[in-house]
Amino acid sequence: MEEILKKVFSGDRRTVARAITMVENRDPRRYRMLAGLRSKASHALVVGITGSPGAGKSALVDRLTTEYRRKGLTVGIIAVDPSSPFTGGALLGDRIRMQQHATDPGVFIRSMGTRGSLGGLSRAAGEAAQILAAGGKDIILIETVGVGQSEMEIMKIADTTVVVLTPGAGDSIQTIKAGIMEIADVFALNKADLPGARRMAREVRVMVETNCHGAPWCPPVIETVTINGQGVTELVQAIENHCQYLTESGKLEEQRRQRVLDELSETIISLFGEWLGRQGQQQGLLTSAAKQIASGQVDLYGAAMAVLQEIFAGGLKEEGYSFSGQEAFKK
Amino acid sequence: MEEILKKVFSGDRRTVARAITMVENRDPRRYRMLAGLRSKASHALVVGITGSPGAGKSALVDRLTTEYRRKGLTVGIIAVDPSSPFTGGALLGDRIRMQQHATDPGVFIRSMGTRGSLGGLSRAAGEAAQILAAGGKDIILIETVGVGQSEMEIMKIADTTVVVLTPGAGDSIQTIKAGIMEIADVFALNKADLPGARRMAREVRVMVETNCHGAPWCPPVIETVTINGQGVTELVQAIENHCQYLTESGKLEEQRRQRVLDELSETIISLFGEWLGRQGQQQGLLTSAAKQIASGQVDLYGAAMAVLQEIFAGGLKEEGYSFSGQEAFKK
Repeated sequence: MEEILKKVFSGDRRTVARAITMVENRDPRRYRMLAGLRSKASHALVVGITGSPGAGKSALVDRLTTEYRRKGLTVGIIAVDPSSPFTGGALLGDRIRMQQHATDPGVFIRSMGTRGSLGGLSRAAGEAAQILAAGGKDIILIETVGVGQSEMEIMKIADTTVVVLTPGAGDSIQTIKAGIMEIADVFALNKADLPGARRMAREVRVMVETNCHGAPWCPPVIETVTINGQGVTELVQAIENHCQYLTESGKLEEQRRQRVLDELSETIISLFGEWLGRQGQQQGLLTSAAKQIASGQVDLYGAAMAVLQEIFAGGLKEEGYSFSGQEAFKK
Repeated sequence: MEEILKKVFSGDRRTVARAITMVENRDPRRYRMLAGLRSKASHALVVGITGSPGAGKSALVDRLTTEYRRKGLTVGIIAVDPSSPFTGGALLGDRIRMQQHATDPGVFIRSMGTRGSLGGLSRAAGEAAQILAAGGKDIILIETVGVGQSEMEIMKIADTTVVVLTPGAGDSIQTIKAGIMEIADVFALNKADLPGARRMAREVRVMVETNCHGAPWCPPVIETVTINGQGVTELVQAIENHCQYLTESGKLEEQRRQRVLDELSETIISLFGEWLGRQGQQQGLLTSAAKQIASGQVDLYGAAMAVLQEIFAGGLKEEGYSFSGQEAFKK
């Protein structure tokens, strides 16, 4: 493990790739690895890029990468497709488009698809971002294929979220979902050379301003054209501004603290669920409670409360549960 | 509450409808109501009807209802659409087709759509089935719109699951998903008058027999034609045979026991999750553990284990947690 950590820190591409495969496969050894990587992963900014299919997200990611490289920053790219069960080679098209960066040692590109649950995917993508950050990448770009519920879930791991819109393509003001407004830190109005772009930009700005009067951060609307790179410098600047706002307001730290807290809670709940599942396999509190529910003696809620109180009062006693880090929490 | 229970038991339609609305809205009072209904809900058989859109499920449900009524049995119908956010009037088309039963006091029809989570929907449908059973219905038919993951989830609440197939319509043997094979207790090959039906019936039978050699129950394949009612008597017979198999083998009781156990576990886990969420809002064990994860001192898994052990050893102490039924589980 020491060896893996050292190689990730040195930015060894093969080890970084293997480490990401480890989190993708939900390998239990990832916990120790990720703890080892934490200290060197906090400097990087994680930027999420989301928007309807065909909005030109990949081309924009390509342009952003070129711009960041020009500024001397290294870039990690994670392309996430929640609708695809494939991994590694999932978004072949994007990788081909990205070929100009493929041989650049300052850029690392990885595609991820669903393997198991969706919750697992957004978690794995977040962990992959940590690995890339620990491997020395300054900017981590996380691109999703669409703007569904799944993509919004994935965007929770980003520090800054860019929502890509296009004129025409169904992205009229009316169809922009409420949820999108909430997650957008920056709007990129892509294909700004198309007819109707100007009007749409105006409309989006009005909508944004109506939404955020008095708020400490108001999402800017940047018009971009990927074929000639127009507006990309401004987009990078807007992302930097948001990053500065996050840092100065203490929100960056707060968001990241909340994310760790959420991960911890999820892990505790899933461990508890596994334990409970094993209890249901054998005669005991749970099965006797179930019997009383079935006969109508107690209601489900009351029984659940009773079992929970019994378990907590009695302590978690089960063979095979031992834990080395327990001493860490003695107050 | 006593009043509601009495009226449900007497089969009062308005009260039954209101009781279902209560579970649909996840009203907390439903727990007590459902406990009160349990004792009179176990006699009914819950039959799930699933299959691709356009397979003729609604027409088949209509035919089955007529057949059950002819036999002197009362029928409750729950049409579930996981893709629709509407409730009550969601499946208007089906209700129109069902009009011949609408004025029959021995038939109760209700549509349900998603409100909140999917897990919530399948739970609500199961509870609605209990209410209809307590209201005196002998057979509860649960119909879904398709055969996706959501529909399979809903089928878990059925005692007997009928999978409806049609020749042509993409339902070739190759496209029948593995999951479908696992949940099917009876196959209805509908539109059996269409060309290719015979061959398809043969193929499905071969597939079924390959799958279930030695198993105590082998799903029969019944050819049905809804326009003239052909095969419907045989389908009802097949469902009855499966019910008899379930009862005699003790599987009916086992399935229902397992379902109560699952509901209990889910409720306990969600109560625990809510409690944990409140802990994260204040300084304490959870936040200090999160800090140590963030700094890389402990890994996520280890910290989760430690917190879980601490909580369990200390007992569940929180203001506002009192529970009346607790005495029920003292051994």
